[in-house]
Amino acid sequence: MQKPSIPKGTRDFDATEMARRNYIFDTIRSVYALYGFRQIETPAMENLSTLMGKYGEEGDKLLYRILNSGDFKAEVSADDYNEKTAAQLASRFCEKGLRYDLTVPFARFVVQHRDKLQMPFKRFQIQPVWRADRPQKGRYREFYQCDADVVGSDSLLNEVELVQIMDEVFTRFGIRVSIKINNRKILAGIAEMIGAADAITDIAVAIDKLDKIGLDKVNDELRERGLSDEQVARLQPIIALSGTNAEKLQTMSQLLAQTESGAKGCEEIAFVLGALQDAEGRSLLHNEVDFDLTLARGLNYYTGCIFEVKALDVAMGSITGGGRYDNLTGIFGMPGLSGVGISFGADRIYDVLCQLDLYPATATTNTQLLFINFGATEAAHCLRLAIQTRRAGIPTEVYPDSTKMKKQMSYANAAGVPFVALVGENEMQAGTIALKNMQTGEQQNVTIDEAIALIQGK
Amino acid sequence: MQKPSIPKGTRDFDATEMARRNYIFDTIRSVYALYGFRQIETPAMENLSTLMGKYGEEGDKLLYRILNSGDFKAEVSADDYNEKTAAQLASRFCEKGLRYDLTVPFARFVVQHRDKLQMPFKRFQIQPVWRADRPQKGRYREFYQCDADVVGSDSLLNEVELVQIMDEVFTRFGIRVSIKINNRKILAGIAEMIGAADAITDIAVAIDKLDKIGLDKVNDELRERGLSDEQVARLQPIIALSGTNAEKLQTMSQLLAQTESGAKGCEEIAFVLGALQDAEGRSLLHNEVDFDLTLARGLNYYTGCIFEVKALDVAMGSITGGGRYDNLTGIFGMPGLSGVGISFGADRIYDVLCQLDLYPATATTNTQLLFINFGATEAAHCLRLAIQTRRAGIPTEVYPDSTKMKKQMSYANAAGVPFVALVGENEMQAGTIALKNMQTGEQQNVTIDEAIALIQGK
Repeated sequence: MQKPSIPKGTRDFDATEMARRNYIFDTIRSVYALYGFRQIETPAMENLSTLMGKYGEEGDKLLYRILNSGDFKAEVSADDYNEKTAAQLASRFCEKGLRYDLTVPFARFVVQHRDKLQMPFKRFQIQPVWRADRPQKGRYREFYQCDADVVGSDSLLNEVELVQIMDEVFTRFGIRVSIKINNRKILAGIAEMIGAADAITDIAVAIDKLDKIGLDKVNDELRERGLSDEQVARLQPIIALSGTNAEKLQTMSQLLAQTESGAKGCEEIAFVLGALQDAEGRSLLHNEVDFDLTLARGLNYYTGCIFEVKALDVAMGSITGGGRYDNLTGIFGMPGLSGVGISFGADRIYDVLCQLDLYPATATTNTQLLFINFGATEAAHCLRLAIQTRRAGIPTEVYPDSTKMKKQMSYANAAGVPFVALVGENEMQAGTIALKNMQTGEQQNVTIDEAIALIQGK
Repeated sequence: MQKPSIPKGTRDFDATEMARRNYIFDTIRSVYALYGFRQIETPAMENLSTLMGKYGEEGDKLLYRILNSGDFKAEVSADDYNEKTAAQLASRFCEKGLRYDLTVPFARFVVQHRDKLQMPFKRFQIQPVWRADRPQKGRYREFYQCDADVVGSDSLLNEVELVQIMDEVFTRFGIRVSIKINNRKILAGIAEMIGAADAITDIAVAIDKLDKIGLDKVNDELRERGLSDEQVARLQPIIALSGTNAEKLQTMSQLLAQTESGAKGCEEIAFVLGALQDAEGRSLLHNEVDFDLTLARGLNYYTGCIFEVKALDVAMGSITGGGRYDNLTGIFGMPGLSGVGISFGADRIYDVLCQLDLYPATATTNTQLLFINFGATEAAHCLRLAIQTRRAGIPTEVYPDSTKMKKQMSYANAAGVPFVALVGENEMQAGTIALKNMQTGEQQNVTIDEAIALIQGK
C-alpha cells in the first residue's frame, strides 16, 4: 500500500513546530490584546459572491472552490457543459469558496454585523487562508495570516499604535527590525509633480534599486519605463534623498509643497513620527522607524500611510506590512468606512526565529517530568504522585508500559524531558523518589515536595 | 445592494464569543499539555483518497470536495459528463476534500511520519472540521474538534489518564459531570452469553430506556428487536443491574465469567476504576465515574474501554466521549497499532457554560483602561501614559478621535471597559490622571503608578 500523503503546498505541523507556531501566535495575540484589539473569527468557507472580483482576475483563478453537495450535475446539462468554459462551469458547480485572505471576510463581517458593532472597531484575526498558487519555497497553499485593523476612525493615532504594536511584537521576539513607513499621498504628490500619475510603481521600483545598481542605471531604467528626460531630471532630488527622517521629511515637504496630496502625506508622516517620540524628541520605540520613499506596497488598495517591516539580521523579504485604506466596505455597499491595518507574516517570522535561534526554551519543550514505569504497583503509585506534580503545574507523564528501562529513557531523551523520576519498591517504601536531572545526569533521593521545588527551580 | 451573508451552517464569532471559545480551548489545551500530550496540526485539505471510504457511505456524501484548479473540464468529455453520476463526476473533478474529523488525518499523519515518531505517541489536536450535514440547532457545517489520543501503547494507564483529564477539564470549567465508562468487550461478552452477537446495539439502546419506560416495556422492545424469550430472560440480571460500581462489576464478572471477552472487559474496567482511587479506596477524582452498561458508542470502531461525559446540571447530550480502538492505521497499511482517545465537544461545552453562567470575568472582557481623547496634545500625552500601563500588562486603549465625551463613554460602556482615564490640560500639568471606576462611578485623581495599582487591584 502506498504511503499516504497530503496535497502539494500544504503542511503537517509536528509538536515542535506547533510549539513554535503557538509561541508566535500567542505573542502577536497578546500584543494585539494589550492595545485593545479584539479577536474575531470567520468561516473557512465564504459564498463565492463574497470572494469573486475582490482579488483581481488572477486572484479569482487562485480561489479554491467547494463543489456543491448533492446533485450538482442537475444544474448543468451536457450541452451546457460542452459549451461553457471551465471558469463558467465552476460558478455553476460551486457556490462556496475557501477564504483567500482575512481582509475581504472582515469587510463582509463589518457590513453584515454593522448594526451591532461599536465604532471605531478594533479587531484582530488569526486564521489560515488558502490560495491555489504554485507552491514554491516559502509559499504555501495553506498559510496563516495575523491581521489587525481599526475601522471607523480617521485618526492617525491608529497608525501610531500599529507602529507601536509592530515594534513591541518584534521586541518580544528578540528580532531586530527596521520599520519602514511611507504615505501613498506622498507618492501621488510625486507623480503629480512630474506629471506622471501612472508611473508611481515604476518610480518606486526603480528608486529601490539605487543601492544595487547606482544612480545612472536607475535613471536609465526610469527612461526605459517611459519617463521623459525632464521627468527624470525632476526626480533627481527625490532619488538622492538621504539623511535622518526629519531631514528627508523636510526636503520632501518643500519639494511637494505645491501638490495638495503630497503636502498632506508629509504632514501625516510628520504626525506619526512625532507621536512616536517623547516630549524631548527621544524615540519611544525599541526599533528604528525609517521614512522610506521606495516603499510602495499595494497601491490600488492603500490610500494613506503604508508600513513594512524587515529583519535586520537575516536576508528575508518583508515580514510584516500594512497601511490605511479609504473604502474597505464599499464593495459590499457600505461606503466611506476608512481603516488602517497590519498583517504579520507568520511563516517568515517562523523562519527568521529559526535562523537566529531565538525560540525561548518554553516554546520547544513540554513535559517536564517523566515517571519511569517499573510495573503495575509502582505505576499506580506514580500515577498518584503525578497528581501532585500536575497540581503544581508541572507537565508530567507516567510512562504507560513497563518496558525496558532503556526504551523509556530514550523516550525521555527524544521528547527533551528535563527530569525523570525513578520510583521502585525501595523508593515507594521510603516515600521518596529518585529524581534524575537529564541534563546534568545528577540523581538524588527526594520527597515529592522537594522534587516539585527542584523542577520549578526554586 | 444585498447585505452579504455567510454559507448556511457556518458562523462568525464576535469578540465576546471568541473570548469564551479561547477560554474553552485554552483550558483543554493546558490540561492536555499537563499530561504530556503534544499538539499537532494537519492541513484543512486532505487528498480525497485519504478521506473516502473512511466514514461509511453516508460520510462520503458529507465530504466537502474542492474543485480542481485550472481546467478541470479537460479531464471529462461531454459524453462522460452525460453518462456519469454526480458522485462519479465529483471524483473526476476533485482530488481534494476538507477534513471531516481529526481521527483519519491523525491516522494518516502517524503512517506518513512513522519513521520520525517516538512511540507511545501522545498527541492532541484542536482544529475545525467540515461536514455537509443538514444544519440544525447545535449542528454546524464547520465546527471545532478537540481530540487527544495515545497510540502505540496497550497500557490501561492511558485510559486512566484520559479519565483524569476529563475530570480535570470539567473541574476547571466548574461543570459538574458524570463520567460514564463501559467496555466493548463486556458488551461482546453479553452478546456471546445470550448467543446474539449482532444485537449489541439494540440491547444497549433498549436497556438505556429502563428509567423512562420501565422493565416490562424494555423487555417488549427487546422481543420486538428479535430476541427470543429465553434470550430476554437471560438478560434480566443485566437489565436490573444496580448498586455501586464495585457491586455492578462483581455481578457482571460472575455473569460473564464463562465468556473470555466479557471476563477481560470486566478486568479492564476494574483496573481503570482501581487506579482512579488512592490506596485507601478513596476517589482521586472530583467527579463521579459511573460504570454504565448502556453506554455503547461507535461499536464498529471501539474495541476496549469507552467513555462518555454528561453534564449533571443541564439537559444536554454527551459533551465528551472516546475510547480504545485496535487498528487506527490499518486503513493506511500500518496494522496493529492500538490507541485510545477522547474528544471534547467544544460547541456543547460552550452552551453549557452559557446556561450555567460559568465564564470567568477574564473570559468576557479585554481592555481594562480607556484614555478619553480631549484633543491632539492631550492624546499625545495619553499615548505615552499608555506605554506605561501596557508595560504593566494592562490592556489599554487611547480613544483615537477627539469626539464628544458622551460617544467615547458609550464606547467604553459597550466594550465593558472597567476603568476610564480622563486627562485634560489640568491633569497634564499636575502630572496626574482622573481615573474613573466605571462600575462604582467613583473618580479619583492619581498618579499613573497609583492608577496601575488600582486597576490591578493592588
